[in-house]
Amino acid sequence: MHEQLTEEYVRKVWAELPAHVKPTTFHGTLLLNQALGAEVTLASETLQITGSFKFRAAYNLLREVDNDQVITTSSGNFGQAVAYACMLLGKRCTVLMPANSSRSKQANVRAYGGEVKLIDTSIKSRQLYTTEILADHPDAFYAPPYDHYRVVAGNSTLGREIFEHFRSPSSGSIELDCVLCPIGGGGLISGIVTARDILAPEVEVGGVEPLLGNDAAQSLKAGHVVTLEAEPQTIADGARTPSVGKLNWEIISRGLKRIVEVPEDKIAAGLKTLYAAANLKVEPTGALTTGAALTQPDLFKGKRVCLIVSGGNVDPDVYVRILAGD
Amino acid sequence: MHEQLTEEYVRKVWAELPAHVKPTTFHGTLLLNQALGAEVTLASETLQITGSFKFRAAYNLLREVDNDQVITTSSGNFGQAVAYACMLLGKRCTVLMPANSSRSKQANVRAYGGEVKLIDTSIKSRQLYTTEILADHPDAFYAPPYDHYRVVAGNSTLGREIFEHFRSPSSGSIELDCVLCPIGGGGLISGIVTARDILAPEVEVGGVEPLLGNDAAQSLKAGHVVTLEAEPQTIADGARTPSVGKLNWEIISRGLKRIVEVPEDKIAAGLKTLYAAANLKVEPTGALTTGAALTQPDLFKGKRVCLIVSGGNVDPDVYVRILAGD
Repeated sequence: MHEQLTEEYVRKVWAELPAHVKPTTFHGTLLLNQALGAEVTLASETLQITGSFKFRAAYNLLREVDNDQVITTSSGNFGQAVAYACMLLGKRCTVLMPANSSRSKQANVRAYGGEVKLIDTSIKSRQLYTTEILADHPDAFYAPPYDHYRVVAGNSTLGREIFEHFRSPSSGSIELDCVLCPIGGGGLISGIVTARDILAPEVEVGGVEPLLGNDAAQSLKAGHVVTLEAEPQTIADGARTPSVGKLNWEIISRGLKRIVEVPEDKIAAGLKTLYAAANLKVEPTGALTTGAALTQPDLFKGKRVCLIVSGGNVDPDVYVRILAGD
Repeated sequence: MHEQLTEEYVRKVWAELPAHVKPTTFHGTLLLNQALGAEVTLASETLQITGSFKFRAAYNLLREVDNDQVITTSSGNFGQAVAYACMLLGKRCTVLMPANSSRSKQANVRAYGGEVKLIDTSIKSRQLYTTEILADHPDAFYAPPYDHYRVVAGNSTLGREIFEHFRSPSSGSIELDCVLCPIGGGGLISGIVTARDILAPEVEVGGVEPLLGNDAAQSLKAGHVVTLEAEPQTIADGARTPSVGKLNWEIISRGLKRIVEVPEDKIAAGLKTLYAAANLKVEPTGALTTGAALTQPDLFKGKRVCLIVSGGNVDPDVYVRILAGD
């Protein structure tokens, strides 16, 4: 195991973090089982604080930070999660957001007391903006969204909830065949694999990526990290990361057998299925795992599958376009 | 108390029914508190079996019925709930549905093993169709959607969950100022008032109706049941009932001080608020209580309010039209 991501540390986080996060929402319906041809349980983070699993990561990362100021770069869920965690922890927070990022996400960062600094990525890269602002604020802590052991440990609390949910009270065994988890930078699935290795080594964790942003699937085939040349333009905006992180790759490369690649139309179909068969409003990235079950139904036929729904934050115009589409 | 709706019977239902229904989903967010200017907790039945509170009523009604066949008339949630309950209880089920009722709701009744009989209400009234089919099936049980003590007792399990959720572990008192509940035929609010009278007599239960279908508000002012001449054409299709039931009126008339009447644009605003600030997909009737807080914000300012979200089943075209509207 990673030098800092020890079982002892992970179990410490499991003991401490649940007091600060909401438990995940387990949900299943007959209609969903019929639609996917499997025995499906959703583990939905749409009702988590700030509407996605990212709050688990942000809070666990920042609760051990002494700096008064936190800076991060995010167009989406991580920025909201960092702003909320800073509000709770009494820290100042600045989120660099692309000028074209959603107005509601900008508004939410401000509602949580964060400062939004808009950047124009057509002029300078995100990384250059970040380097500059950190040079101006040498006392600030920069919050990395996925490539950090405390981020992974925070996310592992979701994995723990999932495996304990399926533990049989009589036999003690975990009555589950597979957990499907979306991959962007790899922060969430690293946490799920970490929990799986401790609690349920016999259960498969399957990765899910948009076909348009399949860097992790390419990496798994190549045996090394593959980086996409440009940010992929998938509707699953939480999975536009061009490559997984270093720590994340260490965990993914030995912990996953399979990554399902989901075409855009099946991501949309997943979102619509969760709308119609489960009454869930999810963001496109949150629909990836349902889209995976629709893309490769034979893989999951009749199996006990847990689909992680990573978050629910999506602007109404995007949601309407998908829901009203064919 | 009503002859059959005794505290003893209600407590028996509280002991037995929870094994057959899903617990309600309690949910709150900072964004929602900011939007409504109150300390808001949602009690959402959108993830209940069949997607609305109606399953509590249907299952409690039918588990004590010996007849092999059940018939009901419904364009919406009660039909789905009855079909699902009959599937579990091994009964045949027929749902009379208006020919213009939503195709997805018809499909769901069939997915639960129910038979759908389409009726044309422009030719004959629902009641006449019902009388005819019951004459043809003298051995069938007709399932009433709200005006029945077992329906009310089933719904009271939601009230019990709500009041127990707000009970302080230290003092034992219920830390809540008000529960808002939608009114159609009055079945749900009768259950909430019944639970309130037993567990939390000091907490106000407020009714909520669409302004277009304000028969209960009119009734409360007049001191007797007022029946609307035609089914009101509100978007809150679960509240189109022209009048409340007899037993329901007995309970409402002595249990409610206030019914908030919500204009159509505020029902839509409630639905959008739950979308944006709480990541919840709700049907228009489920948005009534949030719409009430938006309609009369001064009533609830700074108070601890529980908003009942009665259900989440809404066709995508209706949802898209509301979400995309101004």
